[in-house]
Amino acid sequence: MLNFEFFTPTKMIFGKDTHKRVGEVIKSYGFHKIMLHYGGGSIQKNGVYEQVTASLKDAGIDYLDFGGAEPNPKLELVEKGAQLCKDHGVELVLAVGGGSAIDSAKEIAVGACYDGSTWDFSTKAKTPRAALPVGVILTLSASGSEMSASAVITNEKLGLKRGYNSEFHRPLFSICNPELTFTVNKFQTGCGIVDISMHTLERYFSKSPDTPLTDAIAESVVRQTIAAGRRAIKNPEDYDARADLMWASSLSHNDLTGCGRETFMACHQIEHELSGKYDFVAHGAGLSVIFPAWAKYVYKHNVPRFVQFANKVWDIPVSQENPEETALAGILATERYFAEIGMPVRLSQLNVGDEAFYEMAEKCTESGGRTLPGWLPLNTKEIVDIFELAK
Amino acid sequence: MLNFEFFTPTKMIFGKDTHKRVGEVIKSYGFHKIMLHYGGGSIQKNGVYEQVTASLKDAGIDYLDFGGAEPNPKLELVEKGAQLCKDHGVELVLAVGGGSAIDSAKEIAVGACYDGSTWDFSTKAKTPRAALPVGVILTLSASGSEMSASAVITNEKLGLKRGYNSEFHRPLFSICNPELTFTVNKFQTGCGIVDISMHTLERYFSKSPDTPLTDAIAESVVRQTIAAGRRAIKNPEDYDARADLMWASSLSHNDLTGCGRETFMACHQIEHELSGKYDFVAHGAGLSVIFPAWAKYVYKHNVPRFVQFANKVWDIPVSQENPEETALAGILATERYFAEIGMPVRLSQLNVGDEAFYEMAEKCTESGGRTLPGWLPLNTKEIVDIFELAK
Repeated sequence: MLNFEFFTPTKMIFGKDTHKRVGEVIKSYGFHKIMLHYGGGSIQKNGVYEQVTASLKDAGIDYLDFGGAEPNPKLELVEKGAQLCKDHGVELVLAVGGGSAIDSAKEIAVGACYDGSTWDFSTKAKTPRAALPVGVILTLSASGSEMSASAVITNEKLGLKRGYNSEFHRPLFSICNPELTFTVNKFQTGCGIVDISMHTLERYFSKSPDTPLTDAIAESVVRQTIAAGRRAIKNPEDYDARADLMWASSLSHNDLTGCGRETFMACHQIEHELSGKYDFVAHGAGLSVIFPAWAKYVYKHNVPRFVQFANKVWDIPVSQENPEETALAGILATERYFAEIGMPVRLSQLNVGDEAFYEMAEKCTESGGRTLPGWLPLNTKEIVDIFELAK
Repeated sequence: MLNFEFFTPTKMIFGKDTHKRVGEVIKSYGFHKIMLHYGGGSIQKNGVYEQVTASLKDAGIDYLDFGGAEPNPKLELVEKGAQLCKDHGVELVLAVGGGSAIDSAKEIAVGACYDGSTWDFSTKAKTPRAALPVGVILTLSASGSEMSASAVITNEKLGLKRGYNSEFHRPLFSICNPELTFTVNKFQTGCGIVDISMHTLERYFSKSPDTPLTDAIAESVVRQTIAAGRRAIKNPEDYDARADLMWASSLSHNDLTGCGRETFMACHQIEHELSGKYDFVAHGAGLSVIFPAWAKYVYKHNVPRFVQFANKVWDIPVSQENPEETALAGILATERYFAEIGMPVRLSQLNVGDEAFYEMAEKCTESGGRTLPGWLPLNTKEIVDIFELAK
């Protein structure tokens, strides 16, 4: 087991009706002036906006209304939001939404305490030194951003999508009411299931040995995500299934499933190029296509790990004569499951052709300036090969 | 799944040599004057005391040396420590040790910011309003106190041992180096394995349904504790086994294994009377005796839960005709395991007779003023029955 730090200071407030308490929660920290940040119109349609603003008003919290967060959240909006925070003396940024609204809020919070562009942090040219606190009301189980230290932002001018980690990105609190996800449609639910699974699997398929406890927890998170995912897709108002997905979302990306292991999210890195290039590709749908291709490309370089995955997650009996067969069966079971819940597993299903494989691979490796580490380090050529396998 | 809050702000710094960084860690928070609190002479014998004080000196941290923490930590020492903190302007209490030193430090930290006796908190007559921060260097994998909100203190004058939870009890940081547990003897290692298992199992055997994710995580923690426990007993210097036990210690008692479930620690409550009455009974050894008796006494009131435990933790096939047999087999497997690692499973092995069963049961129920809740609520009579089964 490798040395590690584990630090998850976000207060998770989980369960039915919890979002109606947001005003008193914010008041308990002593804040009076906040920014309310959210995405499109869904929270207005389903009544969440009204319930949240009523709670804020009841608690005497003054809020600056700032919507417009989009999937693959944009730097331009972040910069505008950060300036508004400065101009109005905002004390906390409250994100109501999924990963896009949360990541956008995290960057606004960092930008509000910085004199330049937050893209300086995305490129790792600078490190944030301060940030406003961020609160979350979660409406989508997927990104894990509600308990993670990361945020991913798209710079449209440069056509680049970049994520980075900072302890300032950990939300102060996250209010997670599974009922708010009842109205999430089948496709978005599927994207979430894939994203949650991948946050755990990317940590699981790392190089480090001798972490049986972390492994067992990771296998549990993935198994229960698979099981709850099936139930939620079938019955969108199954509270316990939605609750398991929501809690798995947080646990899969708060570092728990990677403790003592080296982590480098190769599939995420490759997928960021895909949805960075093709804005119509949802992150979860992109991962659903990339993971099976990546796994088929690399599994022979660590057969025992994929055998363990097949056995512990998919209950596939271990073949002593032909362990490679067991390993591949686990990958195919994952691919079948993704397809079963309605997710694409080939680029053609995303309407993505092969015209930009090289361009995306070059961006991902910074023109060969970095490789994605792992059992098999991936450079431009290997990433193109993976795209080819995913066609 | 029930509503829950999950809040674990303790920074965990885990791995080899980490304790040698304690000075810089404390300095990074801006503290200069601390109390160094620890137990008997073991940290002086094994060189840890020297390494820790060297690190403090290197970082320019002024420390007040205050040893003497005992198993079942005493109120008298706490009050003395709290007064010293007040007199000397201590800013942080650093515990070096296991649960006893940590719990003692937590109470000192609370007492340093209170004008009365901290026993007011133990009896729940008062609620703490402030506390000094607590830091931990863990030398024993057992209590989970390094990441928990609880502390247990013994009032010798009243002959009472009482625990309570407070968010002020969460340590600011915990430094966990598994190597520091290499010298823990077989008996103390066994006590730790039982204590870790029980922190998870008491949450697992609660009344609340529909928490498959929490269940699966709890089953993973117990399974890996059992496996790592066997290895650590056999080879005390097996780093990875010691590391799994240490990490399981924290995860088993930071609430993760109980999220969405109602928790009431019946075995702990009963055991506190046992080691409160008989000071020579180690907490883990007491639990090792109480759990099998408790489980045999209550399992018929929730056979499916004990069947799940037998199957998921012990791989015992489920008998459709006679599920009670499966349930009992899981309890007996646990009892055999405790015996295998050298722990007592009967009161007679602890040299405890039946002279005080009624007295201890009455204390536990506050003379019938409270029952221990669960599938089968336990009052004085039932607790006496459990002691009888444990003879």
